[in-house]
Amino acid sequence: MKHYAGIDIGGTSTTIGLVSEEGSIIDRSIIQIADFASDSIDLFIEQMALEVEKLAEKHECKIQGVGIGAPNGNYYNGTIEYAPNMPWKDVHPIAPVLEKRLSCPAVLTNDANAGAIGEMQFGVAKDLKDFIYITLGTGLGSGIVAGGEVIYGHDGFAGEMGHSILVPDGRNCTCGRKGCLEAYVSLRGILETYRDLGGTGETTPKDIAIRAQNGDELCVEVYRKTGNWLGLKLADAATYTSPKAYVFFGGIAAASDLFFPSLIETMEFNIHNLYRDKIQILKSGLPLNDAAVLGSAALVM
Amino acid sequence: MKHYAGIDIGGTSTTIGLVSEEGSIIDRSIIQIADFASDSIDLFIEQMALEVEKLAEKHECKIQGVGIGAPNGNYYNGTIEYAPNMPWKDVHPIAPVLEKRLSCPAVLTNDANAGAIGEMQFGVAKDLKDFIYITLGTGLGSGIVAGGEVIYGHDGFAGEMGHSILVPDGRNCTCGRKGCLEAYVSLRGILETYRDLGGTGETTPKDIAIRAQNGDELCVEVYRKTGNWLGLKLADAATYTSPKAYVFFGGIAAASDLFFPSLIETMEFNIHNLYRDKIQILKSGLPLNDAAVLGSAALVM
Repeated sequence: MKHYAGIDIGGTSTTIGLVSEEGSIIDRSIIQIADFASDSIDLFIEQMALEVEKLAEKHECKIQGVGIGAPNGNYYNGTIEYAPNMPWKDVHPIAPVLEKRLSCPAVLTNDANAGAIGEMQFGVAKDLKDFIYITLGTGLGSGIVAGGEVIYGHDGFAGEMGHSILVPDGRNCTCGRKGCLEAYVSLRGILETYRDLGGTGETTPKDIAIRAQNGDELCVEVYRKTGNWLGLKLADAATYTSPKAYVFFGGIAAASDLFFPSLIETMEFNIHNLYRDKIQILKSGLPLNDAAVLGSAALVM
Repeated sequence: MKHYAGIDIGGTSTTIGLVSEEGSIIDRSIIQIADFASDSIDLFIEQMALEVEKLAEKHECKIQGVGIGAPNGNYYNGTIEYAPNMPWKDVHPIAPVLEKRLSCPAVLTNDANAGAIGEMQFGVAKDLKDFIYITLGTGLGSGIVAGGEVIYGHDGFAGEMGHSILVPDGRNCTCGRKGCLEAYVSLRGILETYRDLGGTGETTPKDIAIRAQNGDELCVEVYRKTGNWLGLKLADAATYTSPKAYVFFGGIAAASDLFFPSLIETMEFNIHNLYRDKIQILKSGLPLNDAAVLGSAALVM
């Protein structure tokens, strides 16, 4: 049986997983980004390499390749570029350094693309060649698959649907512009919608979901509107790549019963008739904690 | 030298071209759709086959394949499906019938996809693997190329950017919905903008362009707004496939000096910084009258 390393680089912690070719995570170790934040990124990269070696030694196996999912990951160069939530700004080669250091292929892409690949290899997208994978978390990430291939674009940065404009001159987005889909449909967006609708007090999107499930009208409306906004943009997205499905992943997707109905209604109402009643709305088939590591490993398989 | 047939099926006439592998149109014949409108589509297809045979006989060559560009063309099935501007509604197999009848491969796609392929083979997109081809005519058609491949989508209908929504609840579109980009940026859209801005009398987009070039302020404003609208949507489109270029084709593209400046200004102002100052705005490198035939032939080469 062949073994791979799947690395999920996040803003807070980085998980290094040892993954079998059938898609089981055999073992994993976790590094805290904060422990390296004041150092050069080289030390952080070296630590990832050490963790891969330790896992391989512990389980007496050879690593065939390393796949990495990272924020602002550039597939073509294997770099992280100007990631706003990482301590190291600028452009940093990750995959080329790990490839040399570990003497095996290393491939990097952004986390949503890695997720889409994981979904094709091990999840609900096994039989899909055309779909859009959408991660609903702090932001809204997307990985676009067409003809069985992830679309990377000329520079490696395709698939940033979260930064398509939903409302011209709308809410401020972390990207510095206004009205991005992500400013409405994300953990942050849900909290802002809650306050816009008159909600008060400290709360979380999860709390709002629980209150909605218990019938709180304001909280029901928060998720209903979230579905409306997303549905409107998904109607638009269909005109680009005509996907067979939208696949949802992330903490918010767990509350799908609260926003899928309004999402589907708005999407179908607003979609061009070429695409109407054709698109499946699916939830990820992978566990929340494993998907990024599995997807990253699948990238190099 | 190898020879191919490139067929451009339009709403009014259909051109059958004999094309060399280097991309010259050696000869062509034209059928008027009206002559067949009251007949079964079978007669129309048979006439296309006869014209291909006549051209091959006249120039003493063998046809290696037939490429067809058609409105609402479905690449996967070789069908025309529910084309609003054709006398034959419903779904009609074109490529499979021609393939059997002429004993050579026949491939069909929509006209914008054929144009994009022509541009890669013979035009300005020779060195581009990621670009979006936009035809500005009666409507706004688009062909999306990613990683060197046309994106067809799961059903063959990807690339209908003209029917992405520019203005929610905006102008009526021929597709039955409201606010589509095509209702603003197309021959029809330009006439409506002219009237919205207070323009009167019988005119054409070409007349408006000539008047704009002579300094008529209202006409200058018509094209300036057209560029603004298109630029806004092109900023959005970049988030899907991160193209290296947008390539423009069609009668309106000839007036590019009137709308490219406002298009570029609005696009760059509204685009996410990942894509800023990276995208080329190009005009087609193929002659208006030859592009569709060359593109169709390139499809089967």
